Amino acid sequence: MPSDPYAAARGALLDPANLRVWSMIATVFGDLALTKGAHIGGPVLSALMGEMDIRPEATRVALHRLRSKDAWITSEKAGRISQHSLTARGRRESLAAAKRIYAEPGAGADAWQVVLLESAGAEARIDMTRRGYAALAPRLFVGAVGAAPPEDALVLTPQDVPPWIGAQCEPKDLAHDYDALHERLARTAALGLEAATLSPLQTATLRCLIVHGWRRLVLRHPDLPRALYSDTWRGHDCHALVHALLQRLPRPSLADLDA
Amino acid sequence: MPSDPYAAARGALLDPANLRVWSMIATVFGDLALTKGAHIGGPVLSALMGEMDIRPEATRVALHRLRSKDAWITSEKAGRISQHSLTARGRRESLAAAKRIYAEPGAGADAWQVVLLESAGAEARIDMTRRGYAALAPRLFVGAVGAAPPEDALVLTPQDVPPWIGAQCEPKDLAHDYDALHERLARTAALGLEAATLSPLQTATLRCLIVHGWRRLVLRHPDLPRALYSDTWRGHDCHALVHALLQRLPRPSLADLDA
Repeated sequence: MPSDPYAAARGALLDPANLRVWSMIATVFGDLALTKGAHIGGPVLSALMGEMDIRPEATRVALHRLRSKDAWITSEKAGRISQHSLTARGRRESLAAAKRIYAEPGAGADAWQVVLLESAGAEARIDMTRRGYAALAPRLFVGAVGAAPPEDALVLTPQDVPPWIGAQCEPKDLAHDYDALHERLARTAALGLEAATLSPLQTATLRCLIVHGWRRLVLRHPDLPRALYSDTWRGHDCHALVHALLQRLPRPSLADLDA
Repeated sequence: MPSDPYAAARGALLDPANLRVWSMIATVFGDLALTKGAHIGGPVLSALMGEMDIRPEATRVALHRLRSKDAWITSEKAGRISQHSLTARGRRESLAAAKRIYAEPGAGADAWQVVLLESAGAEARIDMTRRGYAALAPRLFVGAVGAAPPEDALVLTPQDVPPWIGAQCEPKDLAHDYDALHERLARTAALGLEAATLSPLQTATLRCLIVHGWRRLVLRHPDLPRALYSDTWRGHDCHALVHALLQRLPRPSLADLDA
C-alpha cells in the first residue's frame, strides 16, 4: 500500500496528453449531475478541476464554449456563486452515452450478424457506423444481433466464429489506446482504494478520471460481441476494471461535495 | 408443322460456331455409350458426325486426339470395322458430368450459404470454384447449402434474398450464351417432334446436338439455387427444355443404331 493511495491513483489515472478541458467538464456533469435539476456550484467545479491540474482560466474558457457553442451547459448566479447544470440537449446526449459508458460488463449481445450491402460508398459506411456496425470488407459489415440493417441488405447469420475474425473486426486504431488505459486502470485497481478513506472531492476526482479515460475510447467504436475481438483486445478488460473501480468509489452526492 | 421436322430441328440446333469436333465426340459417347462395355462402331459414328456436317477427316483427327492425348477413347478393330469406346478415365469423367447434365430440373438445393475467406487470392478462388461456389465479392462466395466450405472460413446463413443478389452471383459471361441456346431449344420444342417418326440415327443426332449445347454451358458454372439468379437468367429455362426434349427423344439403343 502506498502511504497516500489517492495521490497514487490520481497519478496513475491523470493523462494530461488526453485531457481536453471541455470534454472533461462534460464527463464531470455526465457522472455527477445527470439528474434533472442537478447543478454543480462554481467552487466545487473549480476544486475538481484543480485536482486534475487544470488551471481556472482553462476551465472558464471551456465553460464558455460549452455554454455558447455547444449549448451543453447553462449557468446561473445564486448570490455570488455560479450554479452550472446540463441543458436539455446536454442531458439528452449524456444520457444516451451513459447507456454505453456505465453498461454492465457482459450485458451486450453475444450473437452477431453479418450484413452485405448491394454496393459500397462513403455514405453507406457512415450510415452503417451509425447503426452500430463495424466494417469487415468493402461492402460487408458485422454487428450485434440487435442492430437494425438497412432495407434491401443481405443479412447473414454466422454459423461459427473463425479465429481470424477478431483481427478484422476490432478497431485497430484504438487497440494501443486501450492497452494504455488498461495499464492505468490496473495500476489503480492494485491500490486497493477504499471510499471511506477518501473525501467526497477525492472520490469524485478519481471517478471522473476513470470515466473520462473510458468514455473517450468506448464511444468511438460500435458495441460488438466479445467473439468479434481478438484475444489481445483490452477493451473488455478495461470495461471490467472501470465497472469494479466505480463500484469501489460510489458517486458522492452533490450536497457532500458542496460541504 | 414443317414438312420435315427433323431437318427443321437439326437446323435450329446445329451451331457450327460452337462445335469443336473432339468435344462433340465426347458428348456422343457420354450420351450413347456410357455403360461399361458399350462401343460405337466406326460407320455409326461417321453417320452421326455426317448428320452434323462434320467431315470424316475432322472426325479422324479428333478421335486421334481423344485416344492419344486425352486417353478418353479407346478403339479396337473387329474385322474391318473399328469399335470405339470410352476409357476408364473417359467413363469416370463422363459419369461425373452426367449428374449435372441430366439432372432433373428443380432437383438442386433451394437453400444457400455465403462463405467469407480470411484473405483473397487466385488459388483460393480456384479452390472455391472447384467446391461449387460462385464469387460474390473479393473474399465472399455463395454456394448451395450442400457445398463444403474450406476449414476456417466464416460460413453464413442468409436470412432472406435481396432482389439485387442475382445480378451479382450469376455468371454474366454466360448469360448471352444461355439466351442463344434458349432460343434454339424453344424453336426445337415448338416443332412437336415425335420419336416414332424419326430414325434411330436422327433421334441420336438431335439428342447429341441438344446435350452438347447444354453441356458446354452448364458445366462452366456452379449449380446455385434458383434464388441466386436474376429473373432474366435463362439457364433454368434451358434446363427445363433440355429435359423435356430428351424425354420426347428417348436414347436409341446402339443395336438399333447399328442396324
